Amino acid sequence: MLNKDIIIERFQALQDDICQKLESLDGVGQFHQDLWERPEGGGGRTRIITGKHIEKGGVNFSAVHGEMPVKICKALGIEPTRFTATGVSIVLHPHNPHVPIIHMNVRYFETVSGLWWFGGGIDLTPHYVDPLLAKQFHMGLKVACDLHDDTYYPKFKKWADDYFYVKHRKETRGVGGIFFDRMQSDYGSKEENFDYVMEVGNSFVQLYSDQFLPNYEKPFTDREKAWQLHRRGRYVEFNLVWDRGTKFGLDTDGNIESILMSLPPVTHWTYRYPYNEREQETLDKLMKGIEWINYT
Amino acid sequence: MLNKDIIIERFQALQDDICQKLESLDGVGQFHQDLWERPEGGGGRTRIITGKHIEKGGVNFSAVHGEMPVKICKALGIEPTRFTATGVSIVLHPHNPHVPIIHMNVRYFETVSGLWWFGGGIDLTPHYVDPLLAKQFHMGLKVACDLHDDTYYPKFKKWADDYFYVKHRKETRGVGGIFFDRMQSDYGSKEENFDYVMEVGNSFVQLYSDQFLPNYEKPFTDREKAWQLHRRGRYVEFNLVWDRGTKFGLDTDGNIESILMSLPPVTHWTYRYPYNEREQETLDKLMKGIEWINYT
Repeated sequence: MLNKDIIIERFQALQDDICQKLESLDGVGQFHQDLWERPEGGGGRTRIITGKHIEKGGVNFSAVHGEMPVKICKALGIEPTRFTATGVSIVLHPHNPHVPIIHMNVRYFETVSGLWWFGGGIDLTPHYVDPLLAKQFHMGLKVACDLHDDTYYPKFKKWADDYFYVKHRKETRGVGGIFFDRMQSDYGSKEENFDYVMEVGNSFVQLYSDQFLPNYEKPFTDREKAWQLHRRGRYVEFNLVWDRGTKFGLDTDGNIESILMSLPPVTHWTYRYPYNEREQETLDKLMKGIEWINYT
Repeated sequence: MLNKDIIIERFQALQDDICQKLESLDGVGQFHQDLWERPEGGGGRTRIITGKHIEKGGVNFSAVHGEMPVKICKALGIEPTRFTATGVSIVLHPHNPHVPIIHMNVRYFETVSGLWWFGGGIDLTPHYVDPLLAKQFHMGLKVACDLHDDTYYPKFKKWADDYFYVKHRKETRGVGGIFFDRMQSDYGSKEENFDYVMEVGNSFVQLYSDQFLPNYEKPFTDREKAWQLHRRGRYVEFNLVWDRGTKFGLDTDGNIESILMSLPPVTHWTYRYPYNEREQETLDKLMKGIEWINYT
């Protein structure tokens, strides 16, 4: 029967598999691993790559356990209990501004008292939005979702639009993707939910390759590089101001270097960046509710 | 009698005076002004400099008014009312890593229902902590405070240690300074409080010159520049994760470009930055409770 040890093992194997394939995609860079332990129980494997084409990437696995913080028990309306939380988190910042930033997360949570759920998501942040590549990305996500339940893609796509939103800029982080949380028995058995989550995890490298391969060798201008560095600022703003996962980690004394591996290697903030027409076109597409799969 | 119009006028004059003196300090850069209006009432003058020595600086004045957001009335435990808030905010990021980042803010708030208070602060963020320069900075603040009340410096110095704290890194933002808020009649008359706040504002340029002039022409290595770009990451983390002023602005739909002028022009995040001995010496001094004025 599916239990947390199996999930932990499968998440570790997923991390291994993704790292190996990303090294092959980059061609030069290799992941450097840091093992860490959490004083209260559990730990993780943080893997960072500084590659030829992936300027900075992190593929992190963690599995932590211990007493649930009282504050969180109260927020969930449950009695004090012990918990296990495990997951794989990825953020890749490419050198080439024509390659999008990508993020993926799959996670599982359970308490000794019997509560459990899955969560996760993948979203894409192109520096220049290419509607055909956005469509391809969303088609890939839809295929992975439909294999399990054809209500998932529309529901989780909308959830991503709402979640990956830089509220103070009134713009989405990128072209979205899928986001889901608290996936419990109302979504199916634990086994079914886990199969879906692994489907998402296993789809990651193909989805990224489809964005990476057509673009990573494209020539780019200084202006395009500057635009990338500027857009990375929005990525930082989202992660530090709005991302609940990051905030939870910072509030609860998580492994800071591991949590903040998502921040870009080099970032520019320019007061009132002077957008050109092509940059404005991208900004105009950073909105909720675009049905990328219908793009023609 | 002192009223909000006089305070607004004096804050505007303070902005003018500081901008003029900073231009003279930089020698080349000039402030570019953006006037903005708040749909609900009031507006501001955002002034940005991209100088020869001040890589990116903002000296902002604003005076806004209107109905108090219901949420804030509730938080303050008061009936719905109209408010006016005005202030001057400064952040300067120098080119030279031997020159510290500096921040200053003075502010005044009142409601039609008769509530009023002042607030403000100055704090210094050296990329390399020089205890003698930190001492000089704190001595200058103490002198300005003692002219009004000799309990202010020790009280507001401690408040700054607690406020300018990057909690998730367990380090102070820099060598601190002073911070004060809700300065009401328990601190003296409105006139006395305002005199103190203007003293703080008027001390800014001298305090900064004392840091800037001995350092702005010092040669620096690539390693020192890289360290500066790394340390700026902590500045971003503080402002986006912990700074209440920034969060308030982002939550309440403030002038985003003006609020985020505090973010550095170029910032690096490196996973597990490999500190050398001299960098570690600075990190060791980023703690609360150091009595810089006693340094010998």
